[in-house]
Amino acid sequence: MDEGRPIIAITMGDPAGIGAEIILKALLDDALWRNARPLVYGDLDRMQYLAERFAIPVHVAEVESPEGAAGTYPRIDVIDLADIGAEFPFGSPSARSGRAALDYIEAAARDAIGGQVAALVTAPIAKDAIRMAGSKYNGHTDMLADMTHARRHAMTLVAGKLRAIFVTDHVALAEVSARITHKRVLDTIELAAEALTLLGEEGRPIAITGVNPHAGEGGIFGAEETEKIIPAIEAAKSHGINCVGPIAGDVAFHRMYRGDYAIVVTMYHDLGHAPIKMIAMDEGVNWTVGLPIIRTSPDHGTAWDIAGTGQARPTSFKNAYQLACRIVAREGAPL
Amino acid sequence: MDEGRPIIAITMGDPAGIGAEIILKALLDDALWRNARPLVYGDLDRMQYLAERFAIPVHVAEVESPEGAAGTYPRIDVIDLADIGAEFPFGSPSARSGRAALDYIEAAARDAIGGQVAALVTAPIAKDAIRMAGSKYNGHTDMLADMTHARRHAMTLVAGKLRAIFVTDHVALAEVSARITHKRVLDTIELAAEALTLLGEEGRPIAITGVNPHAGEGGIFGAEETEKIIPAIEAAKSHGINCVGPIAGDVAFHRMYRGDYAIVVTMYHDLGHAPIKMIAMDEGVNWTVGLPIIRTSPDHGTAWDIAGTGQARPTSFKNAYQLACRIVAREGAPL
Repeated sequence: MDEGRPIIAITMGDPAGIGAEIILKALLDDALWRNARPLVYGDLDRMQYLAERFAIPVHVAEVESPEGAAGTYPRIDVIDLADIGAEFPFGSPSARSGRAALDYIEAAARDAIGGQVAALVTAPIAKDAIRMAGSKYNGHTDMLADMTHARRHAMTLVAGKLRAIFVTDHVALAEVSARITHKRVLDTIELAAEALTLLGEEGRPIAITGVNPHAGEGGIFGAEETEKIIPAIEAAKSHGINCVGPIAGDVAFHRMYRGDYAIVVTMYHDLGHAPIKMIAMDEGVNWTVGLPIIRTSPDHGTAWDIAGTGQARPTSFKNAYQLACRIVAREGAPL
Repeated sequence: MDEGRPIIAITMGDPAGIGAEIILKALLDDALWRNARPLVYGDLDRMQYLAERFAIPVHVAEVESPEGAAGTYPRIDVIDLADIGAEFPFGSPSARSGRAALDYIEAAARDAIGGQVAALVTAPIAKDAIRMAGSKYNGHTDMLADMTHARRHAMTLVAGKLRAIFVTDHVALAEVSARITHKRVLDTIELAAEALTLLGEEGRPIAITGVNPHAGEGGIFGAEETEKIIPAIEAAKSHGINCVGPIAGDVAFHRMYRGDYAIVVTMYHDLGHAPIKMIAMDEGVNWTVGLPIIRTSPDHGTAWDIAGTGQARPTSFKNAYQLACRIVAREGAPL
């Protein structure tokens, strides 16, 4: 075994969701083991039971700590946080499933912060479940930001050469305008530049969208562009960042698709997700840029409606894992 | 000549923009004359001058009224509203260009209302120019709605099988939430159903988006879905309209692309334009649904930056013209 391969920590997600299923299906692909050692933080019995139930020809074995991770295909190493048991019911959130999901994340994040694992790939959890379990968080991102004392961070959607990094994300549309500030736009442009460096694309062009139709058309439809976005772009340029904008939201993504930009700084959730999903519906990956640890995840949720049925597709999870490997390889991150 | 072919009135748009150029280039395609007679409302000298300047092998000839329109390819019939003259400068709005643009629209709209022409295809105008000319309107849509006493109408973006009809359009993002009302959503669903009938696709499925990320996720990110959109959808269903929603804004358009829906009722401008333009950047067409006259237009502006250079592309204008012909053919509209 090449134990020099970095360890990628995988959290099992909400046990009532599709997490364990997509992990098992993904890790059946030996390409995921070539340059890294996968290590699951979850429930051993549950993983073994589901491998059998879905007839996925892998072995699932316990390890005590990252040092024990051998990464020997197809033996999946699991750090057993034994909360749930094999036959826990699928398909709805509960305090128990939320508590288990939180335990997996906390353990894996601690090991990522300590440098025992090189990156974190997180299977989906449910906000309502972790809230039932007493968590104050909305999801992975704010929890990890808190644990790592991150100064700033931004959600990034990656689907091959299509990348959107968000100034705002999971907030009501009516709140978007108030949350767009000079500082937040400038921070996100700087995080976009960091993201490109981590992808090995340092200095490639960054586009910044407007927030209003036609990027406000010179202030006719809203003033965020003239008052906040343009000054932030000017500041970023003066810091030497290669960026352009504001580009109308309905133009920027097409131009990125044809190759003009490496990433689009996007003002709100659907403005980035809607066009990118036209091209790459099930392939997108989320990446939390700005944390001191590497963290990616599939761009979908717990999928209550199909959890436990065997219909879940591992594509987005695989892409999340491979993106983490790509960033780790460039960063020379610790094993 | 088959003078039974319906007359399609074309307005020349702002004379300082790309209108005349795209009309000349488009009408060089004899396919546009096969089932209809094009008739331009504009400036004869300007059209003749530009045909020469851009070496477009058409003839431009004056007619006094729609009765004179022969539609004999490649002789372009023009109702000469002689405001501008041949060598009017390109590239910026002015009171003179705005006044001329308004004159073309008023004359053509009067003939459409009177039934002398079957449909209206409008080349781009500029809001600032018509405002300089003293108009109270924002553009074609509100002007035509006023002239035709339309009770309700909605902008619709059409690109082949991709169609978005908008609950709100050219308003600041911060105003979108307040403009989404039960009545406006229900009106737009009903207009979507009318649009499908005019396209010969009566009864095909209509999707309605949410306004917030993940369509609000049950009220976690905003209440427009639960308070306004869902009740409007229920009302539309109770009137027998085949519709579903709210569908998350980043999912609805992909599903339409793969064939699930015939049209998407879309809450705001960029939510529809951004994904549709990923697939059809220069092909989209605007259609004002709900007016008592048929009116389409290209989905772009006056393009000040390239006006007069010969670089303008007629694709979107051609598609607008052909869409008008398609609707006329089904409607059996007057000649």
